[in-house]
Amino acid sequence: MTILFTNALVVTMDDDLTVHERGWVQVDGSVITALGGGPAPDIAGAEILDCDDDIVMPGMVNAHCHMAMSLFRGLGEDVDDRLYRYILPLERTFVSPEMVRAGSALSALEMIQGGVTTVADMYYFETEVGDVCAEAGLRAIVGQTLADFSPPDHRSFDEGFARVEDLMDRFAGHPLVTPSIAPHAPYSTGLQTMARIAEWSEAHPNVPVQIHLAESTLEVKWAQETHSKSSVAVTQESGLLKPNLICAHCLQLDDDDILMMSVEQVCVVTNPRSNGKAGRGISPVEKLRNAGLPRGIGSDGAMSGNTLDLFSQFAPVSMFAKLLAGSRKPLPAVEVIQMATIEGARALSLNLKTGSLEPGKQADLIRVSTKSSRMQPMYDPYSALVFAAMPTDVTHTMVAGRWLMRNRQVQTLEPARIMSDANQIARQFKGEMARLDSLVP
Amino acid sequence: MTILFTNALVVTMDDDLTVHERGWVQVDGSVITALGGGPAPDIAGAEILDCDDDIVMPGMVNAHCHMAMSLFRGLGEDVDDRLYRYILPLERTFVSPEMVRAGSALSALEMIQGGVTTVADMYYFETEVGDVCAEAGLRAIVGQTLADFSPPDHRSFDEGFARVEDLMDRFAGHPLVTPSIAPHAPYSTGLQTMARIAEWSEAHPNVPVQIHLAESTLEVKWAQETHSKSSVAVTQESGLLKPNLICAHCLQLDDDDILMMSVEQVCVVTNPRSNGKAGRGISPVEKLRNAGLPRGIGSDGAMSGNTLDLFSQFAPVSMFAKLLAGSRKPLPAVEVIQMATIEGARALSLNLKTGSLEPGKQADLIRVSTKSSRMQPMYDPYSALVFAAMPTDVTHTMVAGRWLMRNRQVQTLEPARIMSDANQIARQFKGEMARLDSLVP
Repeated sequence: MTILFTNALVVTMDDDLTVHERGWVQVDGSVITALGGGPAPDIAGAEILDCDDDIVMPGMVNAHCHMAMSLFRGLGEDVDDRLYRYILPLERTFVSPEMVRAGSALSALEMIQGGVTTVADMYYFETEVGDVCAEAGLRAIVGQTLADFSPPDHRSFDEGFARVEDLMDRFAGHPLVTPSIAPHAPYSTGLQTMARIAEWSEAHPNVPVQIHLAESTLEVKWAQETHSKSSVAVTQESGLLKPNLICAHCLQLDDDDILMMSVEQVCVVTNPRSNGKAGRGISPVEKLRNAGLPRGIGSDGAMSGNTLDLFSQFAPVSMFAKLLAGSRKPLPAVEVIQMATIEGARALSLNLKTGSLEPGKQADLIRVSTKSSRMQPMYDPYSALVFAAMPTDVTHTMVAGRWLMRNRQVQTLEPARIMSDANQIARQFKGEMARLDSLVP
Repeated sequence: MTILFTNALVVTMDDDLTVHERGWVQVDGSVITALGGGPAPDIAGAEILDCDDDIVMPGMVNAHCHMAMSLFRGLGEDVDDRLYRYILPLERTFVSPEMVRAGSALSALEMIQGGVTTVADMYYFETEVGDVCAEAGLRAIVGQTLADFSPPDHRSFDEGFARVEDLMDRFAGHPLVTPSIAPHAPYSTGLQTMARIAEWSEAHPNVPVQIHLAESTLEVKWAQETHSKSSVAVTQESGLLKPNLICAHCLQLDDDDILMMSVEQVCVVTNPRSNGKAGRGISPVEKLRNAGLPRGIGSDGAMSGNTLDLFSQFAPVSMFAKLLAGSRKPLPAVEVIQMATIEGARALSLNLKTGSLEPGKQADLIRVSTKSSRMQPMYDPYSALVFAAMPTDVTHTMVAGRWLMRNRQVQTLEPARIMSDANQIARQFKGEMARLDSLVP
């Protein structure tokens, strides 16, 4: 079955940054087979999608997320100690396979609606997240989190590690879902556990490893006090600093850290909304690029970043780079779109499959309407995408040739049921929050 | 004629921050006459708008804009010298009453669609902007810009001032449009011209004065080199620092400047996206609040900030305050919504008319859908509005009891014609840009 996108402003994000005005993209099965400018080829029986000058571009890569946490979105937003007052007690009481499934489904829905086609996730009961992504049709890296603080789904390393093995078994050879192992962070996982994971990872170099790294000044302090070195150096000592390591956040880095990360060829993911909202700082994305590190953009969990599309991250990531430099020049719009697509895919080692529109690649693509008043006039599609487009402008989402959304209608999920389930769980949270508040003297 | 909004999450933004879950708002003619929680009163012949648990709140106040400049949106985004290379030559060639009308209409359309009901504008041929706002039904302060650099619509102070007098005559007593005088900025208007405006303003204390102030380090340098004082101090020396002065940007302020502004009780407008995108810096909005200065939020022109709704400004203004403090606490979501509504109205001296839902106030209000997956679950409406809502969630916009948009259908403007006119002018710009590029050796 052939699908032809015609009359599109095709933004390929290939190495030459080819853009076809009034171009076309041909999809056969799960794969992009051809694309170009001018009139589309005449293919008998092909399904034609006349894009009416809308943008067709690679689906976006949300390179760091905790999908289940959409259920905590905006909870206790302005309460200073919300983590200890609400979130950790709620996680202890409520995190279950069912809760993870409900929250992940809500996130999958939002991402499909907002033009995300690939997501890297880390949380608990991660097989549930994998199942949700597989059903939703999203490309995903799903990372079972391991930590030493007795998280909701394991009391010991062995118990946690058994979950990793389950995940590996369940998604072995899956076309969309890649299992991953996720030491939570140096301060919460500890050198010993990190070293055990690194040893296992050495034997499984194609399994992505995800970690929160250099996120806060508290982490810097912990690393100095307990190991007399930086958090990045602790991670290196554990053996985890390898090309399959995906490092989320990366705010508190000195030049030695960046050099170390560059030598070991790790990948990084910036989460500008989450970091900005927490007042934690600004990731030096320009320095990281100059060090040759592929940089993805992540939403983080909705508890921290609130929305899971990447459009919401574009102005922040761009403004932060410009403010850091005191100039309008750094991180031009085209580079932001690279980070959201091909460079993000590279950060997840998925760039041979996705992240650009090129023959032979998986058909992961979106159509973005150019019709709103916000998008007029359009002198440059990258600028329009970064500074004027909204997730609601995405009209069509396709992964591996499968329609996940057509004309704003999600094809693979039941929005009403998912939102109703999420709100039912939220009502339980509200009840527990009232109880927790009543305990405060 | 009575209009009743029923079954609404009424976010009043009154002094007590009253919120009515499943509440109602009654509008008679141009005025809010009653509101409350629980079932709406039974009023014979009333038009009922069942809001199905959506948010009803005050329309937003875009407290600094250059509406005509939407025609330059995203033009030369990543070109370092775009101002001198493109914008100023284009303004010299193309700014005319017709161009101002076309750009202002595009901006009026976008603002109505994005929930803005009041705008403070400054540009050239400002009677055109006033006419567009009056026709669109927007509440507006329209400021004729005066500057010493021979701007497109005047070659001398007297010529520019004649335009101010025209504007005053045209909108004397207008229910929606308030004329204003707008010295461009200290460095571009000069002390002498500012002093002449201040003298005139002394005799017209109810006419708002708008100025760009403390926007860049270049301005700081100019003020020190030419007047051996800060730009705020130069403005004070001119006599302009008065309660009717609306100061846009306010980035480069020291504590003495803030004290001076506090003593003179001026008003300030922060433009976070515009300032962030230019890498110019962060306005100290917390310090300005502590100094008792009312703070509005502005989009700036679309050339600088790209979008004209306020939702686009919420995450930036919030993140900037938190990053400046290195903490999650500053500028909680409720305060952002205050700045976008009642505090913004206060900054424009319109707070007796608009900015909150209270009996006797003008019926300037919007309905914001709570139905998208992004908005689930909703623990707090302020958090949801600041960090998850999009301008496309606004379904209805009303000013002074008149529908400007119903069910996303703009009532007072012709979107297709406006966008077509804008794109026709943009094509002329593109032609001229190609010519300008060809002049570069």
